[in-house]
Amino acid sequence: MDYDFLFGILDERSISTGDSARMEHATDWGTDDANASPPDVVVYPTTTDEISAILAGATEHNVPVTPYAAGTSLDGQPVPVHEGISMNLTRMNEILDVRPEDFQIDVQPGVMGPALEQAAGKHGLFFPPLPSSSDISTIGGMIANAASGMQTVKYGEVADWILELEVVLADGSVITAGSKAPKTSAGYNLRDLFVGSEGTLGVVTRATLKLAGRPAQIRGGRAIFETLDDATDAVTDVVRSGVDIAKIELIDAESAMMSNAVTGNALPDAPMVFLEFHADHGIDEEIAFCRSLLEQHSPDRFEIADSEEMDELWQTRRELQFAIEEYNPELQAVYPGDVTVPISECSPLIRYIKSLGAEHDLLTPCFGHVGDGNIHSTVLADADDERALDRARAVSEAIVERTLEVGGTSTGEHGIGLDKRNYLVAEYGEETVEAMYAVKRALDPTGTLNPGKIFPEQFDTAPADRH
Amino acid sequence: MDYDFLFGILDERSISTGDSARMEHATDWGTDDANASPPDVVVYPTTTDEISAILAGATEHNVPVTPYAAGTSLDGQPVPVHEGISMNLTRMNEILDVRPEDFQIDVQPGVMGPALEQAAGKHGLFFPPLPSSSDISTIGGMIANAASGMQTVKYGEVADWILELEVVLADGSVITAGSKAPKTSAGYNLRDLFVGSEGTLGVVTRATLKLAGRPAQIRGGRAIFETLDDATDAVTDVVRSGVDIAKIELIDAESAMMSNAVTGNALPDAPMVFLEFHADHGIDEEIAFCRSLLEQHSPDRFEIADSEEMDELWQTRRELQFAIEEYNPELQAVYPGDVTVPISECSPLIRYIKSLGAEHDLLTPCFGHVGDGNIHSTVLADADDERALDRARAVSEAIVERTLEVGGTSTGEHGIGLDKRNYLVAEYGEETVEAMYAVKRALDPTGTLNPGKIFPEQFDTAPADRH
Repeated sequence: MDYDFLFGILDERSISTGDSARMEHATDWGTDDANASPPDVVVYPTTTDEISAILAGATEHNVPVTPYAAGTSLDGQPVPVHEGISMNLTRMNEILDVRPEDFQIDVQPGVMGPALEQAAGKHGLFFPPLPSSSDISTIGGMIANAASGMQTVKYGEVADWILELEVVLADGSVITAGSKAPKTSAGYNLRDLFVGSEGTLGVVTRATLKLAGRPAQIRGGRAIFETLDDATDAVTDVVRSGVDIAKIELIDAESAMMSNAVTGNALPDAPMVFLEFHADHGIDEEIAFCRSLLEQHSPDRFEIADSEEMDELWQTRRELQFAIEEYNPELQAVYPGDVTVPISECSPLIRYIKSLGAEHDLLTPCFGHVGDGNIHSTVLADADDERALDRARAVSEAIVERTLEVGGTSTGEHGIGLDKRNYLVAEYGEETVEAMYAVKRALDPTGTLNPGKIFPEQFDTAPADRH
Repeated sequence: MDYDFLFGILDERSISTGDSARMEHATDWGTDDANASPPDVVVYPTTTDEISAILAGATEHNVPVTPYAAGTSLDGQPVPVHEGISMNLTRMNEILDVRPEDFQIDVQPGVMGPALEQAAGKHGLFFPPLPSSSDISTIGGMIANAASGMQTVKYGEVADWILELEVVLADGSVITAGSKAPKTSAGYNLRDLFVGSEGTLGVVTRATLKLAGRPAQIRGGRAIFETLDDATDAVTDVVRSGVDIAKIELIDAESAMMSNAVTGNALPDAPMVFLEFHADHGIDEEIAFCRSLLEQHSPDRFEIADSEEMDELWQTRRELQFAIEEYNPELQAVYPGDVTVPISECSPLIRYIKSLGAEHDLLTPCFGHVGDGNIHSTVLADADDERALDRARAVSEAIVERTLEVGGTSTGEHGIGLDKRNYLVAEYGEETVEAMYAVKRALDPTGTLNPGKIFPEQFDTAPADRH
């Protein structure tokens, strides 16, 4: 494989073939070491021109390029399964411009949540749809995976806050998708085609994001319920009733127990809901409205917490998945992932997950953005018991299958990567996936960009000599 | 041209080659009779299967198909400039399902605004982003043109309220774009690629739309200003300050004068802003907040109107473009269209439009959704004065060019059609339009669907023998 062309584009410090750099780019958070797949070379470009030249050169030399940012994805998105070049974008981490009078900010793809919040915060603004991982993940990764977060129930997804993208295509051409105008009907919407394309169609080199004014009033609280049905029904009832809720997160008793065991927290051993309200005025009236709805579901209690207590609760919530994974080293986790269903299907789906857990004697902690229909569940089985692991895998598959049966999606905010590829045809049908593949071949005919992702194996996405 | 294949698909009453049907499908609202371009045949399918068979047959026989709905588009979108088949979709006008517990409704593309409102209203729900023309336009047309409306300032565009589309491609394949889940990260976002594609990529045969709960409180009002600058600055100030405003429409003194002359209204001869507030509670507090901001721009008055008065004002606003066109039969209208800019550019752009009008002695009425940066302007010149008409065309071009210079778009909600094609490269750059064209060729390689639209003439979009 000829990588010499890279030395005509980048200085030597921006190219690495060392084992440590290659292994750092061989996995993401969701890929264990047994499935590590290192690239041949890692590059660290800092400009759009460099990225354009690298992609044009890679296409010419038939070399795959897999974009890599913070590596916090969960389904193998940045794992270079066909080797080639790993393109690390974290050095593209500049805030390029802030235009507070237009509620706009221009950023490079390697900017992380805290830098974005700081730049916006100086002007009394914020970026509402940040995912829970935003402290350590990049805006480019959020765009690539069509991410969302706890505040999506009020503010929408990352996709809803992107105005314009600069994108480099596989042939090195640099395009502008979207507009800095608040809305446009001019030509095809390529912007939302790149959002969620997981680096398989182009590399985002600049994003113009919308910002929002910080709410004058922020209050948080939590409600504890007797049964999981009560808690889930309370969430869907609040969302349906039009309460202006900024966050509403379900945590089941199993998740709470595991969090307590790992972190020393003292969450009640019961299903609970964490809430947050944002308003410019009238927040007490909104909270009272919400309380009246929650009370129809027999909560043990509903309490408004002070901001320090709430910070701790939200920290607990953000670390919940880690707690579940660390709870018992003898248990192995199998992931149905972040299935998402129409909200009327939330309660039935959670009941189904719990019934499968009981039937197969497996732990099935559930939590998540139930206000968006988005349930994060994990199936845990004894790592040394192959039959239990088989049951866990079957349960995980059954959860995704039921999700698709009721009109849901296999992934609400994490993306397909490697792990969800085999559900794509079941979710959309063969002809739809064929249409997606036609778009892939149109924009990346040589298969340069991130081969092996999104599409099931029968769709060939690798360069000619990499099949 | 062989259209016999149609008789194997549709009954005779669903196929027309009569002059009257052909001429009805030769123009849209924005195309005058001099530019009429009739199809060879008009078809009226009623099922997805029929549409699939027609498109597959047309592709096989090398015949263009141009989708047609209510014909209320303004830039020639449904005008069959390469003849062939006009596919009238107004008989696909069924409400298929309403799922109030999920805030979802499934509709066929020919459903019009009033039927949609009625079906949703039965459940206390509504479809917020309807455009001003919704009484006589179809949801399919709104999707095709990425429409928006007066309530977009609060609720977003039509695109933001679409969950899932069934689409028939040129080869007859039927795909599902998007999901009934509230959000998805699964595979490419084809849904938003079809929104705004003006019937050039596929024919939408079913749409799952999101609905919202009707607000408990609705109040309207208007503010009258001394100067146009005051009025425009007041709008941008209100939007920036985060007032929860559901509509905020600017009307300049020229537009008001023309409306009065045509309709017998008695609007003040001054720049004004019409407003509407939606809330579940606390509307008086919101109105007071808005008033405090408006008062910083020296309004002559700000008055809250009762609902009957407001109905009349909104009716006046909806009919404003007609009034401008009918004001003086000796004047001819030239349209810069619905240019849209970042909100900080609204006041400067409107000042620029007015200065051009003064300089060239032309009427330039302006109004629109200034809260979205969206300005509807018209340039009027003596129809018999060729030099005045030339000046009007130059002014219109200068308005669009200035819009693009300041980061705006040539069309915020009407689409490109025929009229805006020559701005597309200026707006996005050649490489971006090449990428759009690659997508067009990937999904419609034979150029069956609506040839001649969106792309400038150097991009060939017609079937092989129609160049």
